[in-house]
Amino acid sequence: MSNVVCLVSGGLDSATVLGLMLAEGHYVFPRTFNYGQLHKRELESAQQVVWYYQRMFPAQLATLEVVELLFLKKLGGSALTDPTLAVPLQRTDGEMSKKIPITYVPGRNTILLSVALSIAEVKDADGVAIGVNALDYSGYADCRPEYIDAMNGVAKLSSKRAVEGRPITILAPLLHMTKRDIILKGTEIGVPYELTWSCYQGGGKPCGKCDSCILRARGFEEAGLKDPSLSS
Amino acid sequence: MSNVVCLVSGGLDSATVLGLMLAEGHYVFPRTFNYGQLHKRELESAQQVVWYYQRMFPAQLATLEVVELLFLKKLGGSALTDPTLAVPLQRTDGEMSKKIPITYVPGRNTILLSVALSIAEVKDADGVAIGVNALDYSGYADCRPEYIDAMNGVAKLSSKRAVEGRPITILAPLLHMTKRDIILKGTEIGVPYELTWSCYQGGGKPCGKCDSCILRARGFEEAGLKDPSLSS
Repeated sequence: MSNVVCLVSGGLDSATVLGLMLAEGHYVFPRTFNYGQLHKRELESAQQVVWYYQRMFPAQLATLEVVELLFLKKLGGSALTDPTLAVPLQRTDGEMSKKIPITYVPGRNTILLSVALSIAEVKDADGVAIGVNALDYSGYADCRPEYIDAMNGVAKLSSKRAVEGRPITILAPLLHMTKRDIILKGTEIGVPYELTWSCYQGGGKPCGKCDSCILRARGFEEAGLKDPSLSS
Repeated sequence: MSNVVCLVSGGLDSATVLGLMLAEGHYVFPRTFNYGQLHKRELESAQQVVWYYQRMFPAQLATLEVVELLFLKKLGGSALTDPTLAVPLQRTDGEMSKKIPITYVPGRNTILLSVALSIAEVKDADGVAIGVNALDYSGYADCRPEYIDAMNGVAKLSSKRAVEGRPITILAPLLHMTKRDIILKGTEIGVPYELTWSCYQGGGKPCGKCDSCILRARGFEEAGLKDPSLSS
């Protein structure tokens, strides 16, 4: 058992990573980020997921803290933070794999991982866990395996711990899994998918048409399971 | 001539980098960071330096923007942001080279470079310039050449530009220079060192005893020059 900083977005992937870390016996510092997302629903979902797990693993989970990164909103350039840009809908697989969409927040994962590495250093945590996934994703540059390798190269050098020979490791357990396999594994270990939120758009219910909704729906379908977030 | 995001701290090194970028004809987006430094003097110096250069190079320099990273203060762990931790004074060369001091802000350069890469992507800038220096420095892990190489490895992969084959490059022109050589080069190109601030402590005048003051004083001495910030 070691200490791990876990990034929690409120979505399906990061809820699964949190569940995996707890099932493996780690003590987890959960962190979510407010980077000016147009829709606060995902922050609420992140909190719901963490509360759920605090009841399940009371001795293994610190309080969820929200890290404020509002300069990212000011910077603009993404449909997730700029109300004047529309979220693309009904994209085909070819479009998703070839073209980085306007929902991409420039450099987001690098910033989130940098901040998580800094938190890990202060908390003396051995790892930083993130739910990136290179198979069923939305075409973002910073979800690829070689990108995670490069960030691990930075982690190996950048901290006081690294100088002492105890570098922090970036853990991306979903990197090579399909959405189907993620959902099957998560269901097996009891991830509360009914509390998660994947949709890029606002509203009381998922739109069903953005990349994130499409990938989620297909994942549940291929897993032969019903998405519990759609049942109510 | 290309667009460059330049990190400006108010200190001697970053003022020199800004001068070099402008002398090379780049259009520069200057950015400074408020990470909860105990002493605001360095932010004031950063603004003074940028104002100076805006008069010298009116067509090459955007407005200085301050990026708020106050979560770093909350995180703690450094004498630069935590008033309960004392800045170490009168450290010898051996101590500086061997022991990372309490003035180290965990993961700071990784976070600053990540944010700068994100800004560069939005501004379509080709480079990010930073004044890190591996010779006369205070023993920080994230000032070493291999660290900059690792961050360039991330930059080569992480952006939309990178996917399009036009990655952003991290420029660290002072990396292999001694403080003496930095000061000689900067003086040659007219860097306004009288406006810069290096001291880790607060107060109206530099303390002369912290690592940063010691390295600066030695640099001017070895360059055979008087430090203009001490003349008034």
